[in-house]
Amino acid sequence: MNGAESLVESLSGAGVEVCFTNPGTSEMHFVAALDRVPGMRAILGLFEGVVTGAADGYGRMAEKPAATLLHLGPGLANGLANLHNARRASTPIVNIVGDHATDHARYDAPLTSDIRGFAAPVSSWIHTSTSAREVAADAMRAVAASRAAPGQISTLILPADTAWDPAAGPAAPLPVAEPVIPDSRTIEAVAQTLRGDRRKALLLRGTALRREGLEAAGRIAAKTGARLLCDTFPPRIERGAGLVAVERIPYFAEQATESLATIDDLVLVGSKPPVSFFAYPGRESWLSPPDCAFHVLAHPHEDARVALEQLADVLDAPAEAKGHASLQLDAPGDTLDPFSVGRVLAGLLPEGAIVVDDGATSGIGVYLALGTAAPHDHLMLTGGSIGIGLPMGVGTAVACPDRKTIVLSGDGSGMYTAQALWTQARERLDVVNLVFANRSYAILNLEMQRVGAEPGDKARSMLSLEDPELDWVGLSRSMGVEASRAETVAAFRDQLASALNTRGPRLIEIAI
Amino acid sequence: MNGAESLVESLSGAGVEVCFTNPGTSEMHFVAALDRVPGMRAILGLFEGVVTGAADGYGRMAEKPAATLLHLGPGLANGLANLHNARRASTPIVNIVGDHATDHARYDAPLTSDIRGFAAPVSSWIHTSTSAREVAADAMRAVAASRAAPGQISTLILPADTAWDPAAGPAAPLPVAEPVIPDSRTIEAVAQTLRGDRRKALLLRGTALRREGLEAAGRIAAKTGARLLCDTFPPRIERGAGLVAVERIPYFAEQATESLATIDDLVLVGSKPPVSFFAYPGRESWLSPPDCAFHVLAHPHEDARVALEQLADVLDAPAEAKGHASLQLDAPGDTLDPFSVGRVLAGLLPEGAIVVDDGATSGIGVYLALGTAAPHDHLMLTGGSIGIGLPMGVGTAVACPDRKTIVLSGDGSGMYTAQALWTQARERLDVVNLVFANRSYAILNLEMQRVGAEPGDKARSMLSLEDPELDWVGLSRSMGVEASRAETVAAFRDQLASALNTRGPRLIEIAI
Repeated sequence: MNGAESLVESLSGAGVEVCFTNPGTSEMHFVAALDRVPGMRAILGLFEGVVTGAADGYGRMAEKPAATLLHLGPGLANGLANLHNARRASTPIVNIVGDHATDHARYDAPLTSDIRGFAAPVSSWIHTSTSAREVAADAMRAVAASRAAPGQISTLILPADTAWDPAAGPAAPLPVAEPVIPDSRTIEAVAQTLRGDRRKALLLRGTALRREGLEAAGRIAAKTGARLLCDTFPPRIERGAGLVAVERIPYFAEQATESLATIDDLVLVGSKPPVSFFAYPGRESWLSPPDCAFHVLAHPHEDARVALEQLADVLDAPAEAKGHASLQLDAPGDTLDPFSVGRVLAGLLPEGAIVVDDGATSGIGVYLALGTAAPHDHLMLTGGSIGIGLPMGVGTAVACPDRKTIVLSGDGSGMYTAQALWTQARERLDVVNLVFANRSYAILNLEMQRVGAEPGDKARSMLSLEDPELDWVGLSRSMGVEASRAETVAAFRDQLASALNTRGPRLIEIAI
Repeated sequence: MNGAESLVESLSGAGVEVCFTNPGTSEMHFVAALDRVPGMRAILGLFEGVVTGAADGYGRMAEKPAATLLHLGPGLANGLANLHNARRASTPIVNIVGDHATDHARYDAPLTSDIRGFAAPVSSWIHTSTSAREVAADAMRAVAASRAAPGQISTLILPADTAWDPAAGPAAPLPVAEPVIPDSRTIEAVAQTLRGDRRKALLLRGTALRREGLEAAGRIAAKTGARLLCDTFPPRIERGAGLVAVERIPYFAEQATESLATIDDLVLVGSKPPVSFFAYPGRESWLSPPDCAFHVLAHPHEDARVALEQLADVLDAPAEAKGHASLQLDAPGDTLDPFSVGRVLAGLLPEGAIVVDDGATSGIGVYLALGTAAPHDHLMLTGGSIGIGLPMGVGTAVACPDRKTIVLSGDGSGMYTAQALWTQARERLDVVNLVFANRSYAILNLEMQRVGAEPGDKARSMLSLEDPELDWVGLSRSMGVEASRAETVAAFRDQLASALNTRGPRLIEIAI
């Protein structure tokens, strides 16, 4: 057994079942080990941003890490933007990055680079294996680190000789610590605050936004009148009919400030105080009122769901939560835009669907409509680095093959990592990709005014995707994913219904 | 005048005429400044790997830096792989990376990341501007650093407030130091070595591989019998009829070792001792014989051309160089493969063409054939990070609009940054893209055996691009670049002739 085999077998033994990869020469022994060790599914991406975005989507839904296998520093570098998003989502991921053989590093060959340097800004744990005999144990530490609540990114750097040299055998998985439950004094203190008659809200994240957490939050709301809020971009939220609904803090700072203006006490449940996404000249980044008091019920690494349940009990809240959404499907109207698309989608959405949202300006209308659709999971762009949607759809579909994944993408965001379509086709993944083709970086046209910049023709052309027009149908088909273009609400409905009734990847270009 | 305007005007005054960009909110004032300051051409890429690869191609041909404009840490991260290649090519580049406004950084908003951390592995100079009044002067230091011989990467991080706050005005460019000329004792010592009767060679890089440098090297060869060598992947080499030919060190270590086995004295001219690209179990990474003596004529930062000319004079070399290639066009034969493609291309290549080589296994045959074609420049993948070809073609075509650019790409490498085709179409660039569609990572099939790994079905499938088949014609057209597919030598010749006779971007998928 060589180091690579001991690694793959150990990972598999620790519950890592999927490896998203774009390998190179230094990873060939790992690739060969995939055949000799059962229990690890390998999924090829044609670009590393696909690999890491898929690992993020997988981790968010499977609630355990996938491995990535990346080729040296540049391979890791290509995956960093979506690792940034994953870090902001607290997704567990184990990156395996091949490196030159230990003795080769000194020669500064062309592909040599500072892999640790590239990895550091996105990794909570980094280690370089120094011997094939240690790779298996190193991998187990990497897995354990990635599973530390609420989820982290581990990067294990694997010199080629540690893959090809003989190893002793696999290593056993390390125990994974359960998330901490906040102590009773913390819960009592928050209860005391909520019993008062000041205006209060709970800001929910992590497991607080899953069905059981929401249910407990809804009981608290029923008892105390507290508002239930979530960030603009939570990693994952369960939504739809029968689920307790929460208010999403608006993206634009002035709207967010207005929304939070009446809050005296803000209880943080796995979340941090709300701040604006960007700064704007002369405007505050801090969104809550200056005299708002913060109360931490659960830090991000603590068990938000249990904390909410205990808080509800301490408050003697009713067993029945307040604020469940009920099924309500509005007619979409005649104009094809994100709102009508959202309503059509809400009407057809299968129960248990996974909505992956990289839709930028177009995502908002869809989000609004889906709140009263069948229950589903909604996954957001947590780190602001666009280009995660199509890859994340790969990962969610791999994690949940029996649930339909719907990807919302802009045409701008989709072009960052469109190679994900090829992997969707290759793996026959059950994904419907909706690409909103507004032929611009629409969000930047808004932001340009909001930061007080005055664009001329040249500046405006930097935000335009009109020349040449992108043909998403052709692009998608070129990578093996059947596609169509919708220019009316009726056409979109027909195409979506057909896509939802068929298994396998599809793409619909929505002309808005 | 705000900070952004002072920056753009200063860059323009320092001879930076082109900005390749994929901007976001934090760069909107820079984008707006493009309209108010003449003299800066802005070119949009839909992905940052396109932006940085284009800047590399531009810098190699223009011999001065382009600017890039990138959006925060993730935008920079997406461009790092091609910056790694550019660093290995010693290409001057000035990266401008927007950051959150200074006061906003403390809030750890979703897009906050360690930009300096991302930049460090590829940058020789990094600075974060702290005030709008200093941005212009900071930019001038960035330009000067990038132009330090042989060329470096500067990264200037620009918090949004330093762009929107008032500035004093533009700053004047700093003087650029001329490259150092090796002193006469160094040249005399090398001359002494070359006068001996040991077996000797010159390993050329940088300006030594341009026409005048090659001419001087050819004179030295005529006088001393020294072999003339270049690295496997030099940044830029002038080749073809009338130019002094050099031997390229083979890629595979055992062939390289054999090629260098008979050298007693190796003179380094802007180059470093040859090492293998990857390590292989049980094989040496050091390619020259153990008893080979090294003699440095010119370090990479020194003036290789002048050193060669002075050395030739000291040696009393004849005025006439030895080893000019002459025009020789071989019949391509009937099988469509990299060799026949190379011969067809050699027959049709316009004088002064720029060949950008990201062809991996397919590039070798073309390289062989082009040595006796019309004179041209050949640009290589210097850092081993595939996916630079299509973007680098953007940059060379912008730098040299009157010369035809020919990009050689694999289908694997092309898929990393295919978005470059859209920029080629948008800017009407005169580029012919040749994509060798072997439907695999062919190099990895070779390397798998060479590192001693034994692949099974799963491993082999990780190297295959067969399922689904990529349709490069459809992919290219979807981004506005006319394309065709060649399955025979005759069809390829017709399509290439048509592409070369037309201005503007074209793509030919070559079925091999």
